[in-house]
Amino acid sequence: MNKKPLILVTNDDGILAPGIRALIEVMQQIGEVVVVAPDKPQSAMGHAITINNMLYLNKISDDKAAVLEYSSSGTPVDCVKLAVNEILKRKPDLCVSGINHGSNSSINVIYSGTMSAAVEAGIEGIPAIGFSLLDYEWSADFEAAKSFIKKITHEVLDNGLPNGVILNVNIPKLKENQIKGVKICRQAKAIWMEKFDKRKTPQGKDYYWLAGEFVNQDNGEDTDEWALEKGYISVVPVQYDMTAHHAIQELNSWKLND
Amino acid sequence: MNKKPLILVTNDDGILAPGIRALIEVMQQIGEVVVVAPDKPQSAMGHAITINNMLYLNKISDDKAAVLEYSSSGTPVDCVKLAVNEILKRKPDLCVSGINHGSNSSINVIYSGTMSAAVEAGIEGIPAIGFSLLDYEWSADFEAAKSFIKKITHEVLDNGLPNGVILNVNIPKLKENQIKGVKICRQAKAIWMEKFDKRKTPQGKDYYWLAGEFVNQDNGEDTDEWALEKGYISVVPVQYDMTAHHAIQELNSWKLND
Repeated sequence: MNKKPLILVTNDDGILAPGIRALIEVMQQIGEVVVVAPDKPQSAMGHAITINNMLYLNKISDDKAAVLEYSSSGTPVDCVKLAVNEILKRKPDLCVSGINHGSNSSINVIYSGTMSAAVEAGIEGIPAIGFSLLDYEWSADFEAAKSFIKKITHEVLDNGLPNGVILNVNIPKLKENQIKGVKICRQAKAIWMEKFDKRKTPQGKDYYWLAGEFVNQDNGEDTDEWALEKGYISVVPVQYDMTAHHAIQELNSWKLND
Repeated sequence: MNKKPLILVTNDDGILAPGIRALIEVMQQIGEVVVVAPDKPQSAMGHAITINNMLYLNKISDDKAAVLEYSSSGTPVDCVKLAVNEILKRKPDLCVSGINHGSNSSINVIYSGTMSAAVEAGIEGIPAIGFSLLDYEWSADFEAAKSFIKKITHEVLDNGLPNGVILNVNIPKLKENQIKGVKICRQAKAIWMEKFDKRKTPQGKDYYWLAGEFVNQDNGEDTDEWALEKGYISVVPVQYDMTAHHAIQELNSWKLND
């Protein structure tokens, strides 16, 4: 009987990204790995799913490969749904997403395809972790991250995750011996201050590129931004119950039924 | 001095949808209305933003129109960012999104472009409400919803919303006199049980359509699903702090730094 955990690997930078290659390498040391990832970059797709179009799913590894790999025309969340429903013979023991090329700390969690894939797995009852390195470059160096990813993954497999909780792990762009450790954090309050870059087509029509500056509005020393700034890996437990439970009492004092 | 509130209206079904037309009509009774909405249906786009492509923005009303209207090639969240940064001269007093053709209760909040647009406004510090009618038809009848939408909107303008909170309002498909009232609720625990519809292209290549069945896993009588089932309008306060604060203590007992 095979006791190796079954691990689903996905991402949002696409199946060819160096980040997912590094994650597959680590996961092969831990379990049986199946990869289902977008066939092209799908950054900032959030929790988008494809309902008004059809999806392709391509097996891209050969049958003798150590790791089964599939690419899909869909979003990161579509990839998780396809994996669970069309590819995997049983519910995986873990879903890992990433390693993202770039930060998914603080408010980025809500825009991130990497994290949305992990959250989708969580919704489907699969323990899930999203990993991101604070380096947007395609040539980012994932070496220092590997031992930490392995340790965090083993902890999740050993302990399980609380019901309805997914981990958002961000790793500073540092050498392994410069990383100070791992901190459990809350999501910092931060926003993107947008500034659209307005241009003209060769035909004279206006168009816009989204650009912006990240602004951390949170001075707390228990946030992911604080931990990353100080050289720690941040781990934020994320939930998909978006209810602001603390606001229910206040809203009940409104005169909505008079 | 103009004391009418400035109201940004958007949606995810596209600027031509009957639902947004009904919402514009109600908002014109309350304030000065500017519409910035997708130029095509963008359902289930979640919190996706456009970072690897450019955006068009088209003014579609003439200068004498009572309501300024713009369509964009972007996602619902892009529309809010464009409105705030490129169109509106000041921060709006309110952003309303919808009326969505179909439910955004329970877990649907996370996939919904309608709600993601409202959440984006919330992130940017604008009081925001997403409205959805439990009728997916293009020919849905929004009449019964109007008086309730007006009342809820006035309450939000009068009371303000707690920091970091957005309202998710779902309206049952009932006649006005059949609607029992408004309930403040939490998001029900529910999932979509997927079942992909596998087909073949004329050339023999497999493709998939996402299909699925909604399953409410929550027996609570304080949920949006319960309220809607009983004939109430559900109002869930939603937050974009996705931290599972209750899980931080448990994770701190893990051996992540040994």
